[in-house]
Amino acid sequence: MKIDGVHYRSVQLDGPTLTLIDQPRLPHQLSFVTTTRWEDTANAISTMIVRGAGAIGATGAAGLAQAALNAPDIGFFEEVLKAANGLRHTRPTAQNLFWGIQSVLKAIEAEKDTPSLARQAAVAAAQAVAEDDVSCCERIGEFGGALLADGMNVSTHCNAGWLAAVDWGTALAPIYAAQRAGKSIHVWVDETRPRSQGARLTAFELGQEGVDHTIIADNAIGALMRRGRVDCVIVGADRIAANGDIANKIGTYNVALAAAANGIPFYVAAQTPTIDGECPNGDSIPIEERDQDEVLWTWGWSEDGHFIRVRTAPKTSKALNIAFDVTPAALVKGIITEEGVIEPSLEGIAPHIRK
Amino acid sequence: MKIDGVHYRSVQLDGPTLTLIDQPRLPHQLSFVTTTRWEDTANAISTMIVRGAGAIGATGAAGLAQAALNAPDIGFFEEVLKAANGLRHTRPTAQNLFWGIQSVLKAIEAEKDTPSLARQAAVAAAQAVAEDDVSCCERIGEFGGALLADGMNVSTHCNAGWLAAVDWGTALAPIYAAQRAGKSIHVWVDETRPRSQGARLTAFELGQEGVDHTIIADNAIGALMRRGRVDCVIVGADRIAANGDIANKIGTYNVALAAAANGIPFYVAAQTPTIDGECPNGDSIPIEERDQDEVLWTWGWSEDGHFIRVRTAPKTSKALNIAFDVTPAALVKGIITEEGVIEPSLEGIAPHIRK
Repeated sequence: MKIDGVHYRSVQLDGPTLTLIDQPRLPHQLSFVTTTRWEDTANAISTMIVRGAGAIGATGAAGLAQAALNAPDIGFFEEVLKAANGLRHTRPTAQNLFWGIQSVLKAIEAEKDTPSLARQAAVAAAQAVAEDDVSCCERIGEFGGALLADGMNVSTHCNAGWLAAVDWGTALAPIYAAQRAGKSIHVWVDETRPRSQGARLTAFELGQEGVDHTIIADNAIGALMRRGRVDCVIVGADRIAANGDIANKIGTYNVALAAAANGIPFYVAAQTPTIDGECPNGDSIPIEERDQDEVLWTWGWSEDGHFIRVRTAPKTSKALNIAFDVTPAALVKGIITEEGVIEPSLEGIAPHIRK
Repeated sequence: MKIDGVHYRSVQLDGPTLTLIDQPRLPHQLSFVTTTRWEDTANAISTMIVRGAGAIGATGAAGLAQAALNAPDIGFFEEVLKAANGLRHTRPTAQNLFWGIQSVLKAIEAEKDTPSLARQAAVAAAQAVAEDDVSCCERIGEFGGALLADGMNVSTHCNAGWLAAVDWGTALAPIYAAQRAGKSIHVWVDETRPRSQGARLTAFELGQEGVDHTIIADNAIGALMRRGRVDCVIVGADRIAANGDIANKIGTYNVALAAAANGIPFYVAAQTPTIDGECPNGDSIPIEERDQDEVLWTWGWSEDGHFIRVRTAPKTSKALNIAFDVTPAALVKGIITEEGVIEPSLEGIAPHIRK
């Protein structure tokens, strides 16, 4: 997708050099972080310079390719395994991360006795993970876009746009596809505290693509639904359990409950690598807890243009910062994947689990 | 209640001088705003220097007393009516504001032909509104405190503590009463975007009173409930319709839906002047929309101690800022009032409507 008319991918690997958009600085500053070592790439994931299921999947894959490129011939595979382990421990919830790392690891393992071949295989596999994500998202746009009618008010939560994938996005891809097909869509953008990915990233993406949108406090979604001002919800997913339960950004469950109470269809959009066939249900998905400072402070841009944080809470108060929640499958109307809109159930999901 | 060991009321009228705590500057700075003219008092309400149903009820009453004190003998009652009208138009949703103004207006009207008597009556009536609020809240604490058991995790939304009343508070009064009765209570404090009254004011109050509490993003309440970490919800109300529907701070409806989905009792605590017998249901309660900048920016204290705002959203994005939402009576287990815990229904509410 484009920023000021120039096409970017959120994650771009060229040789050993990985280029990431520095997402905490959006929307007010477009800057880039480059890495050539897997340790720095891991750090970019854990500090959320790059975030979003598909994007960190591609980044984890790229990080492991960097590890292979940098590992010496002697002790090559041990170095790779160490990097895979380090990359896996950056964030616990998004399944795509483990999928991306595993894809590259398998390619390396097949050639592990010949490091020079393994390095080529690693880079090719990492590029394939990224390309797969792009084509999945484009297909999600087609399947999901068909669900949207001209004039609809669509709500989304957090950012599951192209910044959260490699290109196109998941939850936003249907909106982009519908808009390009000539349908006029208006999007309610949840702020998405504590990190404000909705107000910062989703609003930025939609603005760049010329999609009409309005930012709301997370608290406002129920009221808008009760007033009949929301026709459809599409959110992304960080992990989908085998029974169709969904882990996604904290607050998704609240939105799903409000949609159910008001008879509004609630869709999840995700690439099939987000499905974790080993996870029987939502309660077995590991949920990340992050630093309490993300709740106690808010980052943003001051009126004189500085990127700073302000504290709202008393200095003596503590916070709990749960990064994801689980939405039970019963609240989900369908999962929009690159293989079509599938039913959030054991039977619906089983044929779509990636091997 | 006390701040650093000194007792304060949120609203204090002495002669013509009204002293208000400057609430946007809490918790990091305790400062006061004083007014002697109704116009300045009206401005303090509309700019939310003072906020919360009970507090703006007492402030509106005090403002009308100021108008009577300042009005000349000639054209006295016309001046008073003009002030009543001006004070009524400061904020549209909280019923207590209209109740407080009306109480003082009635007292003035009874003596309107003798301005000197009318002025005395006005001050006495304004003081009575404040005293009534204090005693209502103390009784709410008794009735509500009895619902809380030792070791409970209570969730609340926004600030319905003593800063939102004159003293004690509504939703927080039961917690204060329970804690003083030797029960140990832990409170989940919703941040309450966009103005962060939970993170700023409720956390501040609870800290001053030594009540254990944890701040969470508004988005986290559903996840905590699903994990069984919330035993009970108590929120305040800005207006209660005759059928038991509740208008309260935006996001309350989301909390009520999550409580219902997880079998958690959801209580509303309010003085009976919050009941609007003329309002048949929640859909007929006027809901305030405030400036979009409250959503697009966040106020707080920088690390070097300045009270500033930071912008998260793109400069080209717009926001919608609905200040309240409506929770249907069906989601409310009971309304904790100074007359006991009443059922949220026509029959339950009718005997408690103030004349």
